[in-house]
Amino acid sequence: MDGKRMRDNSQIEKGPTEDERGSSTMRTAETLLRILPMALCVVALVIMLKDSQTNEFGSLYYSDIGAFRYLVHASGICAGYSLLSAIAAAIPKQLTMSRAWTFFVLDQLLTYIILAAGAISTEVVYLAYKGDATITWSQTCGSFGGFCRRATASIAITFIVTLCYAGLTLISSYRLFSKYDAPVAYTNRGVEITTFHS
Amino acid sequence: MDGKRMRDNSQIEKGPTEDERGSSTMRTAETLLRILPMALCVVALVIMLKDSQTNEFGSLYYSDIGAFRYLVHASGICAGYSLLSAIAAAIPKQLTMSRAWTFFVLDQLLTYIILAAGAISTEVVYLAYKGDATITWSQTCGSFGGFCRRATASIAITFIVTLCYAGLTLISSYRLFSKYDAPVAYTNRGVEITTFHS
Repeated sequence: MDGKRMRDNSQIEKGPTEDERGSSTMRTAETLLRILPMALCVVALVIMLKDSQTNEFGSLYYSDIGAFRYLVHASGICAGYSLLSAIAAAIPKQLTMSRAWTFFVLDQLLTYIILAAGAISTEVVYLAYKGDATITWSQTCGSFGGFCRRATASIAITFIVTLCYAGLTLISSYRLFSKYDAPVAYTNRGVEITTFHS
Repeated sequence: MDGKRMRDNSQIEKGPTEDERGSSTMRTAETLLRILPMALCVVALVIMLKDSQTNEFGSLYYSDIGAFRYLVHASGICAGYSLLSAIAAAIPKQLTMSRAWTFFVLDQLLTYIILAAGAISTEVVYLAYKGDATITWSQTCGSFGGFCRRATASIAITFIVTLCYAGLTLISSYRLFSKYDAPVAYTNRGVEITTFHS
């Protein structure tokens, strides 16, 4: 009962209940949106790590292709960061400016890293399927169909991770920049403002 | 004289001069940061479009490689968007919520498009230089050195454009989200707030 009263008092001091509840919902959503890419990254990583094929044409391992090695590293980094940031996001504590900036910068960076990994692996798989006659690159997937299909699955998951990260970028941008005041000439609160420029 | 007095009056109504000046500086910076990638995109586009080499091994055009065709399209789209958005950013008018969202979403999208173009073209040039013995892809740059060098130059410029866009993303995020109020549990203004969670 005492705890309840304390809570009520604190709400009077700090604002309406809806906002607090909205913030708590947002934190839960953010934590889930960070756990999801972690799980997906691990799946993409495992599929790619196990991707090898041996037949009458020879053996092919994921590590024979630079883009796939990069994808494995990027997925690993992304899974690690997602776990750490999910823990950090789940802990209810005051978000300082430096914490908000760290989240923002790292989320952006990881989005770029994982997008690049997906993009270059897609290009390699595309070339492996289609080949390129002019520069005499063979259609490797003709001989290693299973290898290419597993690689494609891993890449598809990587793109889902990229979408999750694009969403997280939105959240961390909101977290960071809603702490700043709007620039005066662009403010949209209250009455319309006419600006005069010399 | 009358115009000057009007300007002074308007400042009293809407806030301190520093903020207005800061906002105007920001608009100039944004406009320049939008014109720069436009120029760079055009340069990258022209270098890539003119990239062809004919020698005793045969002829090689940029259009023989899917990744380079994508880079040309991406640079074209990016140049067009940069021009339009520079004009839109230069015009001093009230930034509505929908305008801020449009800038934010398009800046993010273009960043991803141009980053992907740079990444996949880098992968192709890397493969063309190094080859891949396991999947029997030849070192094309051994025969077409000039072609590869021009392609590399175009890609390098594309990455500078990506950096410009990363900066623009920062500005458009700030523009958009500084219009929102900070979530209550995360607010950093005024006294420290203790939250109670049930």
